[in-house]
Amino acid sequence: MKYALDSEKVAVATREMLEKRGVSTTDIAELTFFLQKDYFETLTLEQCLASVEAVLGKREVQNAILTGIQLDMLAEEGKLISPLQEMIQHDEGLYGCDEILALSIVNVYGSIGFTNFGYIDKLKPGILKRLNDKSTYEKHTFLDDIVGAIAAAASSRIAHRKQSEAEQIL
Amino acid sequence: MKYALDSEKVAVATREMLEKRGVSTTDIAELTFFLQKDYFETLTLEQCLASVEAVLGKREVQNAILTGIQLDMLAEEGKLISPLQEMIQHDEGLYGCDEILALSIVNVYGSIGFTNFGYIDKLKPGILKRLNDKSTYEKHTFLDDIVGAIAAAASSRIAHRKQSEAEQIL
Amino acid sequence: MKYALDSEKVAVATREMLEKRGVSTTDIAELTFFLQKDYFETLTLEQCLASVEAVLGKREVQNAILTGIQLDMLAEEGKLISPLQEMIQHDEGLYGCDEILALSIVNVYGSIGFTNFGYIDKLKPGILKRLNDKSTYEKHTFLDDIVGAIAAAASSRIAHRKQSEAEQIL
Amino acid sequence: MKYALDSEKVAVATREMLEKRGVSTTDIAELTFFLQKDYFETLTLEQCLASVEAVLGKREVQNAILTGIQLDMLAEEGKLISPLQEMIQHDEGLYGCDEILALSIVNVYGSIGFTNFGYIDKLKPGILKRLNDKSTYEKHTFLDDIVGAIAAAASSRIAHRKQSEAEQIL
Repeated sequence: MKYALDSEKVAVATREMLEKRGVSTTDIAELTFFLQKDYFETLTLEQCLASVEAVLGKREVQNAILTGIQLDMLAEEGKLISPLQEMIQHDEGLYGCDEILALSIVNVYGSIGFTNFGYIDKLKPGILKRLNDKSTYEKHTFLDDIVGAIAAAASSRIAHRKQSEAEQIL
Repeated sequence: MKYALDSEKVAVATREMLEKRGVSTTDIAELTFFLQKDYFETLTLEQCLASVEAVLGKREVQNAILTGIQLDMLAEEGKLISPLQEMIQHDEGLYGCDEILALSIVNVYGSIGFTNFGYIDKLKPGILKRLNDKSTYEKHTFLDDIVGAIAAAASSRIAHRKQSEAEQIL
Repeated sequence: MKYALDSEKVAVATREMLEKRGVSTTDIAELTFFLQKDYFETLTLEQCLASVEAVLGKREVQNAILTGIQLDMLAEEGKLISPLQEMIQHDEGLYGCDEILALSIVNVYGSIGFTNFGYIDKLKPGILKRLNDKSTYEKHTFLDDIVGAIAAAASSRIAHRKQSEAEQIL
Repeated sequence: MKYALDSEKVAVATREMLEKRGVSTTDIAELTFFLQKDYFETLTLEQCLASVEAVLGKREVQNAILTGIQLDMLAEEGKLISPLQEMIQHDEGLYGCDEILALSIVNVYGSIGFTNFGYIDKLKPGILKRLNDKSTYEKHTFLDDIVGAIAAAASSRIAHRKQSEAEQIL
């Protein structure tokens, strides 16, 4: 059978993988709300959720999510070649490929999301705390950065939209 | 006279521009110390200063600093074309070119610096607070991101070097 | 008067600046056509033009264009501080901030545009040849990379849309 | 046993993986020579090889190589989850994570390498032609971009060093 990209299948798989790894869109929307609530006082969790959904609809975001989660799962199962196995398994601080994939997600709504990504990645509020719990057998080396990046991209989207709304009123 | 790049002149001009805009290497080293002190308990301000100096020795860092400060100065003097003038003058949140130049500095020691950059840019400790004081006539739209980026890159360099030291002891 | 971002003004200024510097949207669409014609045999210049228009509608693209052209114009007028003046005036190969701004434009439709940007920047077909003519008083150090980047981003957009069309037929 | 990063082990594994996948440092040096020979007439293949070695000595380069080759190998063995498996197996043009990892390698010597990376990735000279041969069972979706990126980074390093040499003579 000839290969052909099936975008719907990629989109669906992305949602399933996130769910399977214990991350709901509401978990991510709560991070976006945390990042943006002080800037937009009328902001609701529903608006954050809509922004997260929009980010998850982007092809590059889906590709980065699938790739990152796949590497996390393989690390969990011990199926990567040494020393990549050890670096991902132990969330090695000098590894960096997790940050690189995450940045490609943040980029989707422009460079204004970089600082939000860094901030949330340090503070680790909400779901990020659970994803970083090193006491379990679960490995989320890529996923914790990915989730923070989706929340940061969704924040950038909100900032752009709030500007559009403000200009339309004028 | 034929043009030829004079690397020494670029390096010297970078230092002079930073000084002229009120930023000392110690100011930046203090940010690096703030970012790294909890990870390396024997870290000294002198080590941070040496790392900042190394970052400032990189050509791409110098180019980004000169370009960013130049734009800040022109904005301060009101010499940019509208609406770029207004965006830089008012540190427009949706502008983003300041973050882009800053990222090129952070990159110098790899992707592990992204989160430190974002974190410090949000918290604005030390010199970053003064650079963000909007009550003065001074405009530091680019410089505040640049200074945070240098501190983040210097932090990455320290993380790499501390690893080398640890491995040499073993 | 209180500052407020006027998105329409930024969009209009971007078009005016490109025109003023001698670059039409058709010039850029021709580069996109050059890059994509071998992959999509039914591709028309009109489709390329529509993609270029879409790229130019993005805020980060507008910001990068305004910033780059502003620096080119100041270099042409000799108004930048030395040695930044000389580096931009002579399109110094080791400068790099032109490539950085360009990459932020390419990024707008994802990483698949990187190779198209590099390819066209080396070959310099169409309008890029004129922008690189060093025998005139004009300085287009930033603009030539920016134009190539817009063409590359428009190519990425076409690739994504052609995929959507193909999937809709199935 | 407590985990500790072993930098030497990572460096050695990187070399072994490249060799195992049929890529020698000379293959990469030849690409660098192809890219730079017209700019520096005294350039030798030995100098290119030394630059490739320097690039391969960088931690972020090693991490990106190990990660990319690992994904290629798993795709070859059919061990990735669908639809990531199909996208990597068929070098899907809209995937993009291969370009993202490659860019992190190019970045190691700054933004001036972006255009060389794109150019070589389109032309596919030397070893890149073999890595792109889709008629074999081998899958090099990541590796072909990685090899081009190493060659581009080595080119940037040469450009910086040739400048230093020229300035030392003066």
